[in-house]
Amino acid sequence: RMLKSVLCTVLFMGALPSLAEVSQGHISVILLGATGDLAKKYLWQGLFQLYMDQVSSGHSFTFHGAALTALEPGQRLMFDVLKNLACPPDESPDRCAVLKDQFLKLSQYHQLKTAENYTVLNREIQTLLLQEGLKEAGRIFYFSVPPFAYTEIARHINSSCRPPPGAWLRVVLEKPFGHDLESAQQLAAELTSFFKEEEMYRVDHYLGKQAVAHILPFRHQNQQFLDPIWNRHHVERVEVVLKETVDAKGRTSFYEQYGVIRDVLQNHLTEALMFLTMELPANVSRAEEVLQSKLQAFQSLRGLEKSSAVLGQYQAYASQVQEELQKARDYISTTPTFAGVLIHSDSLRWEGVPFLLASGKALDERVGYVRVLFKNLAYCAQSETLRDAEHSQCKPRQIIFYIGHGALNTPAILVSRNLFKPVMPESSWREAVGQSNLHIFGQPLSDYYVYNPVKERDAYSVLISNIYHARKDFFITTENLLASWGFWTPLLDSISQQPLRLYPGGVENQHLLDFEMVSGEVAFTLAEPVELLNPDRLMPNDYKTIQTKFRQSPLVSAWSEELISQLASDIEKIAHKTVAESGQFHLALSGGSSPVVLFQRLARHHYAFPWKHTHIWLVDERCVPLTDTESNFFSLHSHLLQNVRVPYFNVHPMPVHLNQRLCVEEDRGTELYAKEITALVANASFDLVLLGMGTDGHTASLFPYSENGLEGAQTVVLTESPVKPHQRMSLSLPLINKARQVFVLVLGKGKHAITTLLSRVGHQPRKWPISGVSPSSGQLVWYVDYEAMLG
Amino acid sequence: RMLKSVLCTVLFMGALPSLAEVSQGHISVILLGATGDLAKKYLWQGLFQLYMDQVSSGHSFTFHGAALTALEPGQRLMFDVLKNLACPPDESPDRCAVLKDQFLKLSQYHQLKTAENYTVLNREIQTLLLQEGLKEAGRIFYFSVPPFAYTEIARHINSSCRPPPGAWLRVVLEKPFGHDLESAQQLAAELTSFFKEEEMYRVDHYLGKQAVAHILPFRHQNQQFLDPIWNRHHVERVEVVLKETVDAKGRTSFYEQYGVIRDVLQNHLTEALMFLTMELPANVSRAEEVLQSKLQAFQSLRGLEKSSAVLGQYQAYASQVQEELQKARDYISTTPTFAGVLIHSDSLRWEGVPFLLASGKALDERVGYVRVLFKNLAYCAQSETLRDAEHSQCKPRQIIFYIGHGALNTPAILVSRNLFKPVMPESSWREAVGQSNLHIFGQPLSDYYVYNPVKERDAYSVLISNIYHARKDFFITTENLLASWGFWTPLLDSISQQPLRLYPGGVENQHLLDFEMVSGEVAFTLAEPVELLNPDRLMPNDYKTIQTKFRQSPLVSAWSEELISQLASDIEKIAHKTVAESGQFHLALSGGSSPVVLFQRLARHHYAFPWKHTHIWLVDERCVPLTDTESNFFSLHSHLLQNVRVPYFNVHPMPVHLNQRLCVEEDRGTELYAKEITALVANASFDLVLLGMGTDGHTASLFPYSENGLEGAQTVVLTESPVKPHQRMSLSLPLINKARQVFVLVLGKGKHAITTLLSRVGHQPRKWPISGVSPSSGQLVWYVDYEAMLG
Repeated sequence: RMLKSVLCTVLFMGALPSLAEVSQGHISVILLGATGDLAKKYLWQGLFQLYMDQVSSGHSFTFHGAALTALEPGQRLMFDVLKNLACPPDESPDRCAVLKDQFLKLSQYHQLKTAENYTVLNREIQTLLLQEGLKEAGRIFYFSVPPFAYTEIARHINSSCRPPPGAWLRVVLEKPFGHDLESAQQLAAELTSFFKEEEMYRVDHYLGKQAVAHILPFRHQNQQFLDPIWNRHHVERVEVVLKETVDAKGRTSFYEQYGVIRDVLQNHLTEALMFLTMELPANVSRAEEVLQSKLQAFQSLRGLEKSSAVLGQYQAYASQVQEELQKARDYISTTPTFAGVLIHSDSLRWEGVPFLLASGKALDERVGYVRVLFKNLAYCAQSETLRDAEHSQCKPRQIIFYIGHGALNTPAILVSRNLFKPVMPESSWREAVGQSNLHIFGQPLSDYYVYNPVKERDAYSVLISNIYHARKDFFITTENLLASWGFWTPLLDSISQQPLRLYPGGVENQHLLDFEMVSGEVAFTLAEPVELLNPDRLMPNDYKTIQTKFRQSPLVSAWSEELISQLASDIEKIAHKTVAESGQFHLALSGGSSPVVLFQRLARHHYAFPWKHTHIWLVDERCVPLTDTESNFFSLHSHLLQNVRVPYFNVHPMPVHLNQRLCVEEDRGTELYAKEITALVANASFDLVLLGMGTDGHTASLFPYSENGLEGAQTVVLTESPVKPHQRMSLSLPLINKARQVFVLVLGKGKHAITTLLSRVGHQPRKWPISGVSPSSGQLVWYVDYEAMLG
Repeated sequence: RMLKSVLCTVLFMGALPSLAEVSQGHISVILLGATGDLAKKYLWQGLFQLYMDQVSSGHSFTFHGAALTALEPGQRLMFDVLKNLACPPDESPDRCAVLKDQFLKLSQYHQLKTAENYTVLNREIQTLLLQEGLKEAGRIFYFSVPPFAYTEIARHINSSCRPPPGAWLRVVLEKPFGHDLESAQQLAAELTSFFKEEEMYRVDHYLGKQAVAHILPFRHQNQQFLDPIWNRHHVERVEVVLKETVDAKGRTSFYEQYGVIRDVLQNHLTEALMFLTMELPANVSRAEEVLQSKLQAFQSLRGLEKSSAVLGQYQAYASQVQEELQKARDYISTTPTFAGVLIHSDSLRWEGVPFLLASGKALDERVGYVRVLFKNLAYCAQSETLRDAEHSQCKPRQIIFYIGHGALNTPAILVSRNLFKPVMPESSWREAVGQSNLHIFGQPLSDYYVYNPVKERDAYSVLISNIYHARKDFFITTENLLASWGFWTPLLDSISQQPLRLYPGGVENQHLLDFEMVSGEVAFTLAEPVELLNPDRLMPNDYKTIQTKFRQSPLVSAWSEELISQLASDIEKIAHKTVAESGQFHLALSGGSSPVVLFQRLARHHYAFPWKHTHIWLVDERCVPLTDTESNFFSLHSHLLQNVRVPYFNVHPMPVHLNQRLCVEEDRGTELYAKEITALVANASFDLVLLGMGTDGHTASLFPYSENGLEGAQTVVLTESPVKPHQRMSLSLPLINKARQVFVLVLGKGKHAITTLLSRVGHQPRKWPISGVSPSSGQLVWYVDYEAMLG
């Protein structure tokens, strides 16, 4: 048999230690997809590098290329690749030539198609080892095949190609690992039925990039310098960026399904970010600790929203898709080819620090980097011209893990000279010396300590070596994968119909793709130029707010965003006026989802709001503990109170929770609240009551035909809601009608029917409680958005 | 009489409208100190400018120079000055020559020394007006005299030189206006006994600098651009700087009393800062509104501490003082000639934005500016080389009010082109055009819109014109002055013995005076070079905190400031550890005055404190409403809770106020609190209890021989205090002793006796409740300052 004869030849040559004498045992590497692009370009070279590095390790090796192709043409294809394997520059040509010859002899092609094929392969390996008296150390199966083939191959390996007890199995998997949380879970579940977690090595080749792989060691080795500054007090921002000049031409069948977020951000950039943000484990060389710490970092990430991302698509993409995928001319692709995403971590270390991830095709340059920019906390008393780079704390201070390409065109680690001279392992990184006129991130290269790898290693070489060394922290565990998809999937879902900014590509993009952070969101800096505008979009901002009448009262109407902004301004105006008159402002707020946007607006945009003199009351409350996420107060607290400075004494949650129980009549919570109102609010007349309206015409927690609260002397009442949680506490209609101002906020298409109905009916509070809102001496204003108004 | 003959001559010449025809009335300007330096250099020129500007205003003028010098030599001295008055470049030489001639004729010298002199002056003015049939419009008295002379002159003016009813009086005062709050109050009180507030014009000549004077108009005219960005979300920092190259040589007799903070920061820089930070009044041209708004801005300033400033002294200063003031060779001056101060405002608009004020003598350049640097909130997708200044949001964005000197050597207003093109009044500011290779604040001048004054006007000319126009917002009102001194005096007091960094002066200072912000404090960036060290300084900070034992428990002892800082750090450490273990931290805090400093320290310096996971409990409370200033909770709220983000649900005030009454047994407040503790705190064992100790040995509100709380099962008790308010609520000793950590904080000489006593007595809780503090399984640590320990 061929395998045997190759081994015999090798042994006969005497160039290797006799296999029988090798004490560490034998390793079989099976490369599935041995004649594919990835294999040709990187994997065989990586395996050859492994062989060169480990030939004296005490392990013996055989390399099995496999594919669906029949034996004869497959063999030819594969050996064409192997013959072209390169000798690395740091290897002596003689040694390399000998080793390459041996490597070829140890390599063999197999057709792996049927279950039978796998059984045969297994038998061949066993037979060889038996003949040679070799102990089996382990088997590496490298899946360089499309993901749809994974399950089938995994089943075959598991059922008929596992190594015997005592020897390990490592299966190496290439992305994509699903395209959202659900599909990733499904794929993971399938694989888990065949392999143990420790057997799986999911490749993210970014983790093999030398600059990325060195992030954790760098943090560890420079801990003394970084400890005081590696936190939100000192870091201004972090950028994790992969820019490409190429576009998706020729690959649209893949790209159209994935897009830039799935292709680059969810995996490569996120992994690099985690290395930066995770807490340094006590022992950075223990894979479990690293993986554990990385998982914790995922848990601290704040959830992404639609407004966390800006998305673009280069102009030629649409026609490329139409052509390559034979789509109709009016087919519109919603696949982003550019994305900028703002990520926040809620950990104590990073709270408030913006992490910007950006990637795109058809950009002006090809470059990848992870950049940590520190805050300028210094005042430099000497004029600029007299400052020197090493001592001036007023020059930018940054640490850059330069992944490759770009102006430097090599992996590098750069540390501003006014930060510190980093500790670097001399065996693998050397300081760059000599002059250069380059500017990197706004500073001449001479302002940095610059380190380059002693040997530039391809990512796959690094990773194949890490597979051999069982360094699982260089790979994506199932937990890690699901954590990442769990983080990205909500954004992917929410942006699936998001408009994309079209960009011409290359340097012509100019500032079109620049984006900015505004109150925790991102938006493109420049307005979209008209010639690129998608004519089908008519943005809400194009309309102005309209003022007219509704039910004989003033009506303010606009698209929801403008409406909220108008409402917030109106509330602030009244607040200032009231505080000026009486020294305080009594504001009663409703629960529900509509006011949340208002709360956020007030918290983020109304700096001059007189919170110190404002009393916050609840219009209604659900009978749950205040710390329950269903509680109206809890929502008010999260979205408003937590972010502004209302004195503790001025906050008046409804006492729904007394004596460790909820809304029990005899605990007299309603009486307590009524007394509190009487004690603090003049005439029990609130300065402003903000109401919402339900699709059934309820307002506050006053539901149609409620026994309590629609009339009578009781000012605070317990009521029953038709939906859960059923028990509620609410201000009564008579109390609401005593207010000096009442604003009703109505948002969304869902409210169109009731809005229309209300415009026609009279005062029928039992049927539609909202129709009973009619301040006896105060003013009522309706804030209704276009969707509720127009459907 | 001379005055008359001058006027007659003028009338005879016919160059002016007949005085009798002037409908607006006559203004007499009396310049006291007419032959002094300031008068020579600026004031006469300013008065001449006023005359040129207002000669056709309908007012007639006479100018009265006055001094202590006798008539004849005084006259000669004064006219020597007047003869040299310059004609401004924008005035036609012919007109100027004629007007200068008239101005000389309208000017007269007076010896003003005795009460009689003032009476005579008054009579002369009246006589002239009577003779000429002129109505008196008003009198301006310009005090260009040393402040010790103020009271005397003021008395004379008030008693014998006031204009008749219907005409106004304006007295113009030059700084210094006191050297601290007390002296300023005293001076103000004296002046107030002679003049009404609206009669006094206190000059801060910075308010007459064109770039400073235009800050408010600029903010107003560019409101549309500034509104969204003029706040803490967009402004990174503000620098208000006056650098001088000269030193104090020849002026040390003044300088040694004042120093750089009183000379420059308290007045010029603070006033400029207020123009930036104050809320824009509805009407910027109404002086009262501007002044009111400025006062409010003062009220928002956070108090300064010793650590808010870095101080320096140029090396030659000591010998200059020794020489000029005939001091002994070992005389050490503690007067700073350089100061950098970090100021914070607690307004919603500016919270967290660092305002850096810096000034010094013997620096590397002469320049003054107010600089607003905006945050970089953008990610620019195009590589740097392809960005242009107007569109790249990644280039620095700043607005600079360039006061003068420096590289530009002219007043200017600069706005980064990537911000906006400002609206500027064309009549007074013109856009600078043309090429320049200058770099200003890190950017080429071409990156800015640059505006210069159409006419460069000296500050005194501007101010004299503003006095004439009664623009009181260009002057310092008494309230404004006292607010400023009220703000600066605590810092001045606390730094009076502060070590100063010595600096060589000029460019040799290199990075010696660079300073940095670290958790709300400032410190020099570089360690002090040994050769410049002042060997005589041994400051309290040079002592270390001492750790030993007290009553068998660990004792931490130090001067109170270091002790508090140690205690705050220790609490933070425990908080982090506890949150890491259990997810929350239950902290019980005592009332009283000692903890206030701790609360402030925690609020201001411990940004990483896990407040979000901390529960705040009260150790004891006075039976007063929570909003009463006597309430422990109120104090805790003002000094801590208001400034940090503890969730509302985690704050647990003691329920002393129930059913509109205080600490009534049957309202069962103690039971309520005990239940709340049981419900939330595992085992009712607080993570940390902070106690104080009274001079009678009480702790919490457990007083000697208390019937409740010293033993027994009740965990929360009502007690009686020997001092008012008598009724208290308190945790019991047994509950305190269940805590995992108990810290006792003892501060001040007043506690020395009880501390000494306690060191000797055993466990006698009835006699000395504090002696019963002995955690059953937790740890007790004493924090006792040197004053309490050593007396």
